[in-house]
Amino acid sequence: MKQKVVLAFSGGLDTSFCVPYLIHKRNLEVHTVIVNTGGFSEDELNGIEERAKTLGAASHTTIDAVNDYYNKGIKYLIFGNVLKNNTYPLSVSSERFFQALAVLEHVKKIGADYVAHGSTGAGNDQVRFDLVFEVLAPEIKIIAPIRELGLSRQEEIDYLKSKGFNFSWEKSKYSINQGLWGTSVGGVETLKSSGILPEEAYPSQVTDQGVERIKIGFEKGEPVSLNGEKMTPVQLIRALHKQASRFGIGRDIHVGDTIIGTKGRVAFEAPAPLILIKAHHLLEKHVLTKQQLYWKEQLSNWYGQLMHEAQYLEPVMRNIETFLDDTQQFVTGEVDVELRPYHFSILACSTEYDLMNPVFGEYGEVNKSFTGQDVVGFTKVISNPLKIYYKIHE
Amino acid sequence: MKQKVVLAFSGGLDTSFCVPYLIHKRNLEVHTVIVNTGGFSEDELNGIEERAKTLGAASHTTIDAVNDYYNKGIKYLIFGNVLKNNTYPLSVSSERFFQALAVLEHVKKIGADYVAHGSTGAGNDQVRFDLVFEVLAPEIKIIAPIRELGLSRQEEIDYLKSKGFNFSWEKSKYSINQGLWGTSVGGVETLKSSGILPEEAYPSQVTDQGVERIKIGFEKGEPVSLNGEKMTPVQLIRALHKQASRFGIGRDIHVGDTIIGTKGRVAFEAPAPLILIKAHHLLEKHVLTKQQLYWKEQLSNWYGQLMHEAQYLEPVMRNIETFLDDTQQFVTGEVDVELRPYHFSILACSTEYDLMNPVFGEYGEVNKSFTGQDVVGFTKVISNPLKIYYKIHE
Amino acid sequence: MKQKVVLAFSGGLDTSFCVPYLIHKRNLEVHTVIVNTGGFSEDELNGIEERAKTLGAASHTTIDAVNDYYNKGIKYLIFGNVLKNNTYPLSVSSERFFQALAVLEHVKKIGADYVAHGSTGAGNDQVRFDLVFEVLAPEIKIIAPIRELGLSRQEEIDYLKSKGFNFSWEKSKYSINQGLWGTSVGGVETLKSSGILPEEAYPSQVTDQGVERIKIGFEKGEPVSLNGEKMTPVQLIRALHKQASRFGIGRDIHVGDTIIGTKGRVAFEAPAPLILIKAHHLLEKHVLTKQQLYWKEQLSNWYGQLMHEAQYLEPVMRNIETFLDDTQQFVTGEVDVELRPYHFSILACSTEYDLMNPVFGEYGEVNKSFTGQDVVGFTKVISNPLKIYYKIHE
Amino acid sequence: MKQKVVLAFSGGLDTSFCVPYLIHKRNLEVHTVIVNTGGFSEDELNGIEERAKTLGAASHTTIDAVNDYYNKGIKYLIFGNVLKNNTYPLSVSSERFFQALAVLEHVKKIGADYVAHGSTGAGNDQVRFDLVFEVLAPEIKIIAPIRELGLSRQEEIDYLKSKGFNFSWEKSKYSINQGLWGTSVGGVETLKSSGILPEEAYPSQVTDQGVERIKIGFEKGEPVSLNGEKMTPVQLIRALHKQASRFGIGRDIHVGDTIIGTKGRVAFEAPAPLILIKAHHLLEKHVLTKQQLYWKEQLSNWYGQLMHEAQYLEPVMRNIETFLDDTQQFVTGEVDVELRPYHFSILACSTEYDLMNPVFGEYGEVNKSFTGQDVVGFTKVISNPLKIYYKIHE
Repeated sequence: MKQKVVLAFSGGLDTSFCVPYLIHKRNLEVHTVIVNTGGFSEDELNGIEERAKTLGAASHTTIDAVNDYYNKGIKYLIFGNVLKNNTYPLSVSSERFFQALAVLEHVKKIGADYVAHGSTGAGNDQVRFDLVFEVLAPEIKIIAPIRELGLSRQEEIDYLKSKGFNFSWEKSKYSINQGLWGTSVGGVETLKSSGILPEEAYPSQVTDQGVERIKIGFEKGEPVSLNGEKMTPVQLIRALHKQASRFGIGRDIHVGDTIIGTKGRVAFEAPAPLILIKAHHLLEKHVLTKQQLYWKEQLSNWYGQLMHEAQYLEPVMRNIETFLDDTQQFVTGEVDVELRPYHFSILACSTEYDLMNPVFGEYGEVNKSFTGQDVVGFTKVISNPLKIYYKIHE
Repeated sequence: MKQKVVLAFSGGLDTSFCVPYLIHKRNLEVHTVIVNTGGFSEDELNGIEERAKTLGAASHTTIDAVNDYYNKGIKYLIFGNVLKNNTYPLSVSSERFFQALAVLEHVKKIGADYVAHGSTGAGNDQVRFDLVFEVLAPEIKIIAPIRELGLSRQEEIDYLKSKGFNFSWEKSKYSINQGLWGTSVGGVETLKSSGILPEEAYPSQVTDQGVERIKIGFEKGEPVSLNGEKMTPVQLIRALHKQASRFGIGRDIHVGDTIIGTKGRVAFEAPAPLILIKAHHLLEKHVLTKQQLYWKEQLSNWYGQLMHEAQYLEPVMRNIETFLDDTQQFVTGEVDVELRPYHFSILACSTEYDLMNPVFGEYGEVNKSFTGQDVVGFTKVISNPLKIYYKIHE
Repeated sequence: MKQKVVLAFSGGLDTSFCVPYLIHKRNLEVHTVIVNTGGFSEDELNGIEERAKTLGAASHTTIDAVNDYYNKGIKYLIFGNVLKNNTYPLSVSSERFFQALAVLEHVKKIGADYVAHGSTGAGNDQVRFDLVFEVLAPEIKIIAPIRELGLSRQEEIDYLKSKGFNFSWEKSKYSINQGLWGTSVGGVETLKSSGILPEEAYPSQVTDQGVERIKIGFEKGEPVSLNGEKMTPVQLIRALHKQASRFGIGRDIHVGDTIIGTKGRVAFEAPAPLILIKAHHLLEKHVLTKQQLYWKEQLSNWYGQLMHEAQYLEPVMRNIETFLDDTQQFVTGEVDVELRPYHFSILACSTEYDLMNPVFGEYGEVNKSFTGQDVVGFTKVISNPLKIYYKIHE
Repeated sequence: MKQKVVLAFSGGLDTSFCVPYLIHKRNLEVHTVIVNTGGFSEDELNGIEERAKTLGAASHTTIDAVNDYYNKGIKYLIFGNVLKNNTYPLSVSSERFFQALAVLEHVKKIGADYVAHGSTGAGNDQVRFDLVFEVLAPEIKIIAPIRELGLSRQEEIDYLKSKGFNFSWEKSKYSINQGLWGTSVGGVETLKSSGILPEEAYPSQVTDQGVERIKIGFEKGEPVSLNGEKMTPVQLIRALHKQASRFGIGRDIHVGDTIIGTKGRVAFEAPAPLILIKAHHLLEKHVLTKQQLYWKEQLSNWYGQLMHEAQYLEPVMRNIETFLDDTQQFVTGEVDVELRPYHFSILACSTEYDLMNPVFGEYGEVNKSFTGQDVVGFTKVISNPLKIYYKIHE
């Protein structure tokens, strides 16, 4: 009996090549799987399934990991207001772990001996996939044919042709990776620091020139309503994406350090993540103390960093999630946002836990909890260490 | 002979009240001083001088502190990409120290016994002023008449009238504080969390509906050219302000913890600071290592926090400046920025110290410094601690 | 009917003075209370009660806060391995909050209008007490007679005499503050930086010249057994103190910044805290990952700092406690410690969650989870950013 | 003409094996080099040279890197009070970089094509060596015969015999690595968590049962005098080692995460490093502000971590060194230390920059710079955020 391999399959050239290669050269029974973290429509998923079967897959499975991805990943990126290098919501890097995990569960379910993926030897994703398999199932052997063989596009096409598969493999001008938490866009322009992407490279185009105000409701840190309508966070992210992408909002360039040590540059479009994070952050500025804001930022920055660098399984991530959960109990309220072409503004918010609530007096007005004379005393005391310092050093 | 007091004088109601009050009630010789950190035109400064003299000041002095403010303050806010709570460039809080310091130098120059300011007992600025005087000149006595007396506007106006000063003191709808590093805007709307400022509250209105691309040159971290034209950083900040404010760029709301422990909310408009910080940050992402970016962010965050909280004189600030200076030696290059109504994008950059330079191969392409097999080894090694962890906890 | 005041009463000169003063000069009904956080024997507590009644207290109450102090304070100082400035286990500063809280509960229980304490205007403790009352019961008025009157020792003694109280008030050479988490020692020597305390200033003297090995068991981070005998953490701290203090272990000098901005210096003797923290830390090095150790240290450092500075009520403290709790689930095992005169060594430990467990091979021996060639690949990859950096800067 | 290889040579079995192996199997001209970072006596160095020549080295060179090691490494470990995991002064890990750098300089000097070292494939040192060569001289090829061949001790001995070298290769019971900054000790006991090293495993034995007081002088952070006698820091470290090792001071166990992801455990004996770091730290507590102490600790912790993990060449290390240098300008004074068997105490210090200097009054005594009433005001103000918080959440 043949040994089984589960292949993470997207229907693109690289993973298409892998199917006959694994069957014929490695003599394996190939079970393809695609994990949807929000980037594929039903039509696309059907097309992928059809291709897998055409190529000879013994079985093909579509796994919907969107809810898992939200509950165990995106939720904490919102709680933590995570923007890598103050810019990038981790649109791509945050979904890889959940894809790998779903693939691994499928491996175990069907009792496969191998797991295969289409990564090359030059990027981050190979590390993100391999690490999950290495850590959680060291007994499963990993095959990455493209990395191992180092073939050119043409060689892959030729091999597929030799096996009777004459699909058309036009290379699209821009490499797009779409998911629930945003879309990345790579092209020749992003390969060098001075390249500027043209307007048309972005998946969403500006079709609305007006101004629109929206209201986002949060409950214990999670987005739960849009313009007064209750919905699940996943529904809300999708609805917000639809509404904001008409304005071309949420585009930027991420420049950062890859896991393998080079600098990488990629454009992205992520209207819903950016709006949600900024709205959530405003609400937190009203309900959390300075110390809570500081430590949330420290831990979240690191959480994002570790997630980006394939370290989702690091136990400290669970500890940080516990901390973040604990900080969100009063992050409940509504935030007003204004949308315009290319731009959004976080305008204001309302929450019953507002620490700006003038229970003892408004800032700048007479304060019922201390007097000007108390502030004089306060200033004298906080001056003291510096006063001593400058006296001694004068 | 009368004792002398130096009064920080802006020509507004509070400091105008202080002049006759200090003369008549405290029996002092009043020397007014205004410190310009970039917010006043020559006309305004002349008007202030005239008023001081009308009110009976024994002398009035205008001090230009713009260069000092840039060299000892703003420069490090740029180096550090300082945005408090990821939003606010410290437009107001960063200039207070330089104003207080200039006032203090004037106190010493004319041998005054007292220093006076118009702060109330309810805000941050009293702390920012008092602290500088307490620390650097504990022998100088501080008078803050408004804080001490707790008078209403009307009482101040009446007192001035009683002394023969019938200026008109219409309260402007918005309280504006302008300086080289941006303008703050307060109004009834900012006193509550849900208030939304109307368009007209902002000093700059959108007069340009087009799109414009500009190029900012940096040398060792400092902005030194705009669209190819060399200029001093101060000139550049002013020119950039002029160009960007036609688009209504750089508005936002700052919500944060005041020195005296309440939450405060203020709108601001700071096109030049925001563009410069984001452009500078992009350049750094290309020329600094991940570790350098991380530690710069940590220290700069704190630097901004301490500056905001009146701790400019804390010796660690000098240590952090030394660190920041040291990180900027290769932050040299040009950054492309796009301006549109309400929005700017940092597009791209070029620098000879670019770490994205593919000396050993481009990211995602074949890398000359390691192979796919090396990455397999790398992944095995970095997997190791988690592999052990999950094995032991399985 | 007279209004009531609750006075935190220790039986010393300052608080003894307060009783007749509050009765006669402030016309209040005085209810004394002593909160034991582990520093008083039953005999001492009886003596204090007797004195309170002699002085005219309407009631006297002894509150045992030891368990509360352990469960809500010390436990987290152990979890966090908290040593301020790498030295001081917060022997004094950590108990003040629990004392203030117990006093406040008594205030509420008997419906008092005032709360009084014997702090002077020159130390940290006034802040620690006042803050708890200000925050949790702003309606209760605080009286601190010693701070308000600024009397000398002799004036206090004379006043007591005038009311007929002729106790002897010999000033002891060293000021000692004892509690469950250690004892502080102040004297003329600690008032200046170069002063060296004599041997006899320390409460415990070396009476054992031998060597002793002990074994401390931890369960989920808490100390639960000593030399194989199960006991509660509070019992264990007391038993360990008794055993270790025969060796004069755990003495050191704490130099640090006080809440009110001066530098302070104090000696302390804290054998049980130091041994428990170091033993607990060793166990953690074996069961936690590098990332967990790093973030625990960051948060705990801050936790200790905030506790020291009277900020126990800051909500971030609860968030940090949640984090710390979450990290302790596998901190279970036994630690071997050696005691000698003046010195202890943490020797070794055993735990079923040991990450040093050679499941994939021992360090330095052949490793089953990667090969030397994998390490070559690993090194090539981690070299990459620096290789690019030095190439570009050569 | 043969190609040249520079071999890092210690005279032990592994590197002795490498000499004939590189000559005969790799056909290279072998130039041995030993870099002394303080662990070798002149006699030992002569013995090593003789052995190298006997084994057939074309040349042997002894490089004294002690001053470089102090000036570019140890000095910053003192400035930063670096103790990894609060315990280990990086006795071994800090010297590897300086050894590799000196080897590399020799490679360049003699124009070699290869560099070789005796590391196995199972430890940290291979990474520390390889990384320096990879980064600074990617064109030089690295040979690590022991890692590549994976031979047993016996196979190495047999090969040497087959080439006519019949040295005696008794395996010592403990593996000792000695250098200026301390000595590490490994044995069967350190391979498991519960192993306890016997007294005799430590290189220094207790020969003095008395008590001794010493005085260490620092100037701008560097140790410059011992008991009043001026000396260079390197001389002082050696003299202090000699004096303190008679007491068996400075032993401990380091447990930590290795570069390659396993937990490692090693004993060490480092009296001079521990005494110097603790003495230096005390002095800093007196002359630096709280903020300076905090940020020094943050950066130094990281500095030590990066040095330990072979990242000395990371540019942030130079930025941190600049910061540390800047903080040391007033770290000048004398520290009193007491030595006893197994134990030292840092007793006291004196410095002209002492911030504990009571210029405005002693802590706990009447303070000339503020009153008790000022502290009441201070406490009211700092209570304010928590007061609001608890009011809103009540």
